[in-house]
Amino acid sequence: MPKRTVTVLGLGAMGSAIAQRLRDTGHDTTVWNRTAAKTRPHAEAGSRAAPTVAAAVAASDIVFVVLLDHASVREHLEPVAADLKDRTVVNLTTTTPNQARDTAAWAAEQGLTYLDGAIMAVPSMIGEPHSRLLYSGDAGAYETARTVLETLGTAEFEGADAGLASLKDMALLSAMDLMFAGYVQAIAMMRTVGATAVDTAEEVHAWLAAMLPHGRGLAEIIDGGTYDTGGQSVDFDRIGLASLIAASREQGVRADLLEPHKKLLDELAATGHGADDWLRVIERLTIH
Amino acid sequence: MPKRTVTVLGLGAMGSAIAQRLRDTGHDTTVWNRTAAKTRPHAEAGSRAAPTVAAAVAASDIVFVVLLDHASVREHLEPVAADLKDRTVVNLTTTTPNQARDTAAWAAEQGLTYLDGAIMAVPSMIGEPHSRLLYSGDAGAYETARTVLETLGTAEFEGADAGLASLKDMALLSAMDLMFAGYVQAIAMMRTVGATAVDTAEEVHAWLAAMLPHGRGLAEIIDGGTYDTGGQSVDFDRIGLASLIAASREQGVRADLLEPHKKLLDELAATGHGADDWLRVIERLTIH
Ligand SMILES: NC(=O)c1ccc[n+]([C@@H]2O[C@H](COP(=O)([O-])OP(=O)(O)OC[C@H]3O[C@@H](n4cnc5c(N)ncnc54)[C@H](OP(=O)(O)O)[C@@H]3O)[C@@H](O)[C@H]2O)c1
Ligand SMILES: NC(=O)c1ccc[n+]([C@@H]2O[C@H](COP(=O)([O-])OP(=O)(O)OC[C@H]3O[C@@H](n4cnc5c(N)ncnc54)[C@H](OP(=O)(O)O)[C@@H]3O)[C@@H](O)[C@H]2O)c1
Repeated sequence: MPKRTVTVLGLGAMGSAIAQRLRDTGHDTTVWNRTAAKTRPHAEAGSRAAPTVAAAVAASDIVFVVLLDHASVREHLEPVAADLKDRTVVNLTTTTPNQARDTAAWAAEQGLTYLDGAIMAVPSMIGEPHSRLLYSGDAGAYETARTVLETLGTAEFEGADAGLASLKDMALLSAMDLMFAGYVQAIAMMRTVGATAVDTAEEVHAWLAAMLPHGRGLAEIIDGGTYDTGGQSVDFDRIGLASLIAASREQGVRADLLEPHKKLLDELAATGHGADDWLRVIERLTIH
Repeated sequence: MPKRTVTVLGLGAMGSAIAQRLRDTGHDTTVWNRTAAKTRPHAEAGSRAAPTVAAAVAASDIVFVVLLDHASVREHLEPVAADLKDRTVVNLTTTTPNQARDTAAWAAEQGLTYLDGAIMAVPSMIGEPHSRLLYSGDAGAYETARTVLETLGTAEFEGADAGLASLKDMALLSAMDLMFAGYVQAIAMMRTVGATAVDTAEEVHAWLAAMLPHGRGLAEIIDGGTYDTGGQSVDFDRIGLASLIAASREQGVRADLLEPHKKLLDELAATGHGADDWLRVIERLTIH
């Protein structure tokens, strides 16, 4: 199978890493960037630098979009809609699920083939197998582009709803954000008695690694959906969280990161669910 | 060395597990509980049931206190202060660091030997090596009681400040609480597109396990204390968190758990720290 021709719109840190990887894996690569100077190293390394988006799009079968945000994507794709016919558009720009759905709907109206992507990696990881890229939208486009996509890292197709790649990315990043917030909270508390951040981080690492496997059991309770488990109750957890918050404040550390969980539990207690499993918090998060 | 004689005050879920383990490891065990009926299975299994706290305390060298909270501990120890002379008091009841320090100060005034403990385990784990118990306060008391303490699980002495065991327990529990909040947030988001909680938990588990080792790098930045790392900035992180919050809300999931981190970053941006490393959030948490 001949290598596909590829275009990369946007040569920031991520777009540059992607263009380089595509070139290094033998693809005929065309690049465009708003600030044209950034195309120079790519041209020197053997890519074609296109002077306009239209020219860049005309050059290749697959068009990767790696711009800043949703607005910049639409600003540059809408004027070249006609040129994008018969191309596969792969938008790797970070957007919310609904923005991805909106662009997919626009593409469908224009008769374009559109795949939305989310990159769970930093630029230096592009091309390595532990760099993970999620895709959703047109399943045919995914199959068409697949061998190319797999040069960037592990590729996964999430489904026809174009918002799914973004949603899963954001869900996993939310979990990571809260986990790292936990590191910061623990480090802040232990710093008050002179512990270094590294010493605390090592303790947290060992502890969280031991606790991680319990996440599955929590999920089983949520899937069960009844919350009469006889396990850790809302009221038990409220006492525990009140202690954590008090301990933090006693040591002169704001407990802002811990408070919302406590507030959600208080809402449950106030609505008669104090004896239920604490995992009922998920029902308070979900707007029914 | 002859086995020590031990007393356990409090036969709730945790006190019962501790009394049973001490008995099973050959210690001469006396128990007391406010509701006397709970002493029966222990008496049948070979422990002595004491009718009063004073009698329970008189019976043994080491007195374990496993009551509900700080108030219940003080309510029952203060009247028997004289009887506690020449005993080693090991208080395993969950309290805040300052409550532990307060009880240690009271004990010192009374001329008592006091060790504060924090149990990082559930009752069913007592006696297993992965059950971890932290101690702080009187180092001599720790050495005296050590072989007994080690029958309950892995024992660690944190230092002479009686609040340290509680503080470390609360710091690690805070990190765990935020990590599990992350599971719940991710599950809530993915449920909106039909993913089961277990499927999402498996994804979260794999992702967090891969991200855990990065905690040490974050800690090194905090120990460095300059925040001019050129790494992920406050402003970069604000954009990322705004996307997570928007994605959550779009899907009909409240973003309460994610908001405080964003607010701390906004405070940093408003005070001129937008270009600094995001880990400067820890300085906002700490009340200087
Ligand atoms: N870097 C990462 O670790 C990472 C990880 C996952 C996902 N992503 C996502 O990948 C995308 C690109 O990120 P990056 O790290 O490459 O960002 P970056 O280094 O800041 O580069 C931004 C790129 O967008 C272009 N741009 C910005 N506004 C534009 C506009 N209105 N019109 C045309 N071009 C515009 C810039 O062009 P100029 O050169 O002309 O300014 C530049 O090429 C973002 O959506 C980001 O969220 C990045
Ligand atoms: N269970 C765990 O997983 C766990 C883990 C780590 C730490 N801890 C800590 O261990 C301690 C005991 O927990 P637990 O699980 O055994 O609790 P529990 O099952 O609820 O038992 C509470 C115990 O405290 C007694 N009590 C409560 N108020 C009292 C008062 N005013 N005066 C005298 N006795 C009183 C109860 O006596 P009655 O029988 O008369 O009500 C009972 O013996 C708590 O501080 C808890 O935070 C527990």
